[in-house]
Amino acid sequence: MKNMLVAQSGGPSAAINATITGVIDTGLEFEEVGHVYGALNGIKGVLNENFVRLDEICKDPATRELLAVTPAAALGSCRWKLKNPEEDAREFEEIIRILRKNNIGYFIYTGGNDSMDTVYKLSTYCREHGVDDIKIMGAPKTIDNDLGETDHCPGFGSAAKFIATAFTEIACDCYVYDIPSVTIVEVMGRNAGWLTASAALARNEERNVPQLIYLCEKAFSTKQFVEDVKEALKKENNIIIAVSEGLKDAQGRYVGEEMKSGKEDAFGHQYLSGIGKYLEQVVTDQIGCKVRSVELNILQRCAGYMLSETDIMESRNLGAYAAVSAIRGESGKMSALKRLPGKTYGVDIVLADLSKIANVEKTVPIEWITEDGHDITQELVDYLKPLIQGEVQIPYKDGVPQHFML
Amino acid sequence: MKNMLVAQSGGPSAAINATITGVIDTGLEFEEVGHVYGALNGIKGVLNENFVRLDEICKDPATRELLAVTPAAALGSCRWKLKNPEEDAREFEEIIRILRKNNIGYFIYTGGNDSMDTVYKLSTYCREHGVDDIKIMGAPKTIDNDLGETDHCPGFGSAAKFIATAFTEIACDCYVYDIPSVTIVEVMGRNAGWLTASAALARNEERNVPQLIYLCEKAFSTKQFVEDVKEALKKENNIIIAVSEGLKDAQGRYVGEEMKSGKEDAFGHQYLSGIGKYLEQVVTDQIGCKVRSVELNILQRCAGYMLSETDIMESRNLGAYAAVSAIRGESGKMSALKRLPGKTYGVDIVLADLSKIANVEKTVPIEWITEDGHDITQELVDYLKPLIQGEVQIPYKDGVPQHFML
Repeated sequence: MKNMLVAQSGGPSAAINATITGVIDTGLEFEEVGHVYGALNGIKGVLNENFVRLDEICKDPATRELLAVTPAAALGSCRWKLKNPEEDAREFEEIIRILRKNNIGYFIYTGGNDSMDTVYKLSTYCREHGVDDIKIMGAPKTIDNDLGETDHCPGFGSAAKFIATAFTEIACDCYVYDIPSVTIVEVMGRNAGWLTASAALARNEERNVPQLIYLCEKAFSTKQFVEDVKEALKKENNIIIAVSEGLKDAQGRYVGEEMKSGKEDAFGHQYLSGIGKYLEQVVTDQIGCKVRSVELNILQRCAGYMLSETDIMESRNLGAYAAVSAIRGESGKMSALKRLPGKTYGVDIVLADLSKIANVEKTVPIEWITEDGHDITQELVDYLKPLIQGEVQIPYKDGVPQHFML
Repeated sequence: MKNMLVAQSGGPSAAINATITGVIDTGLEFEEVGHVYGALNGIKGVLNENFVRLDEICKDPATRELLAVTPAAALGSCRWKLKNPEEDAREFEEIIRILRKNNIGYFIYTGGNDSMDTVYKLSTYCREHGVDDIKIMGAPKTIDNDLGETDHCPGFGSAAKFIATAFTEIACDCYVYDIPSVTIVEVMGRNAGWLTASAALARNEERNVPQLIYLCEKAFSTKQFVEDVKEALKKENNIIIAVSEGLKDAQGRYVGEEMKSGKEDAFGHQYLSGIGKYLEQVVTDQIGCKVRSVELNILQRCAGYMLSETDIMESRNLGAYAAVSAIRGESGKMSALKRLPGKTYGVDIVLADLSKIANVEKTVPIEWITEDGHDITQELVDYLKPLIQGEVQIPYKDGVPQHFML
């Protein structure tokens, strides 16, 4: 009997704890598994041997239900890039030593591109060095929906539901005044416009909001933007616009780059801010009507009160499948979603090859953006819509949502 | 038999449509009332005779239930200040002419300070000019909770619930990294800190978040703020801070004034933005740890998915009471909430004198702010807590909340 270890990495999402719950469910269910450990703060927690006993903490099913609907990452996260083992294998050796010391035979790591890079490197190292007593599996997560080899990513559906809902509410808010107004809503997404595209799900028969959508996959022209807004204002008084935070111009430079903070994270990503504020200034200067910008900010990734039932169910199943696969002897793969053909939405859970996933970003296909560059196609709407369906009842205490806390 | 007219004014809130619903309920119920009209875009809609037949549109109880949980202001709003009648009485005469032309005997106006100013002027003009066939009543509304003569204001409880919830989610999000970090959350409120204070309702036995709360009622010192943050970082890694958008220094100047847009609205209020960004810069420069600012922005006033059941019930009752009072012959007053003494929360609905309300801002009593200036007292928590209690189930369609639309 071997123990199981689970850890989380990358940015928080509303569904990553559901994936952890799926792992714990499986660990408790299968007699091949002894204890279920959680490492705190991702791979750093493994290196520091900072473990908690999740099988004990989450023994009660009610606790697991609460964990499954708690946003962010209950075990904590990290941004820690393992060194290339050919240059420095010490971290790899140390991880293997610690896992063996704790009799851990199954290690499930949940996260996005960078985390899958960790799983890939670690499992490859194990394979190449004859370590076959430790199975290492990935479970996907990223609100950005930019992982390859899976139809979509856990956490994305809930974030998309929050964004679509926010646009319906912002529409209600903007419609109250009968003077021309422009509202620019900045949505997360450096290189992938999936979240921004989700704004289109706010539309219904009565309300064509947002009227303009700009994804970061298509080169952005401030001049054309001004024309688009002027045109839209001819038809309606209240224009609501969705923009990806990572809009770039035809030369690939971030739009409004001068307003960016310039900081970089451990993976070399630059923190972005300010496209909304930049375009607000553009409208003020070049159109002159009432204008404001709204940054949805971190609420879009951590709103545990706006969960997609589809997302939470799938996330939990993906965690369980990664864990079951490890028990069955799989290693170096990621559990993934494969959409079934046909009009009715359905998915199969499959195993995907990590070499095709690590450090690859899946962006919105350019043919899913309309030719005029300021909207998305029906195909993209059809892809997105099933992912936000269903609501999850969450427990409240004293008027605020209750969360699992370690 | 006289007709009834209802209109909305001021900024959107999550509960003002519940108040309108209470008026419509009453108009439909009482045989003294013929049609129930809604004026579009507040007093401007009255002046333009831009009316809709709410008794027909909202005949079906299900439609009224939907209206009651739809955020913003379904009839539209305006920011229109009536001229002083001693200088120019033409608008007053025109309003009276239009109301009489439509056989309107009861006019209910919902809104905040400025709207109550309109009700006060108009009802005073009517009384002084012998117009006794039109009864004009106010119903309160303002997320800022700054109206006098009422224990609290419709719309505030739901906004406070959204803010408290947002802080619980932001706490989950911030706790995932084990490096020192500061998150500054900017909350609406020019001169009244009630909404910012509501952040304290995110606290529970496990989580003392936000650790620092700064209300605009107390002079703010950037130097002291830096000391407070440094002190807090000695005890914990992740510091979350709630700040009112309208923080002022000891000289009464807005903090970070240089980052303000400088625009003014029709009532001479200056639009504020940037205190969060300003303090983010201060922390970067003077402390140097990871820092970010979050502006809750318009979602805090229009989040129809985070309604306080207490707020929505009270708002609807206040609309109904204003309407019933008009039918009974009252005029020039506002329906208001009087909190009952004792430990168990309860309110009476009463009529309040408009002369004490119009253009007066009720701010947080200074004794409800702790002496160190960075927290609120238990008395204030006890005042706030009942107002966010209870959740409202809202209808969803295709994964997003459904709203009433004219």
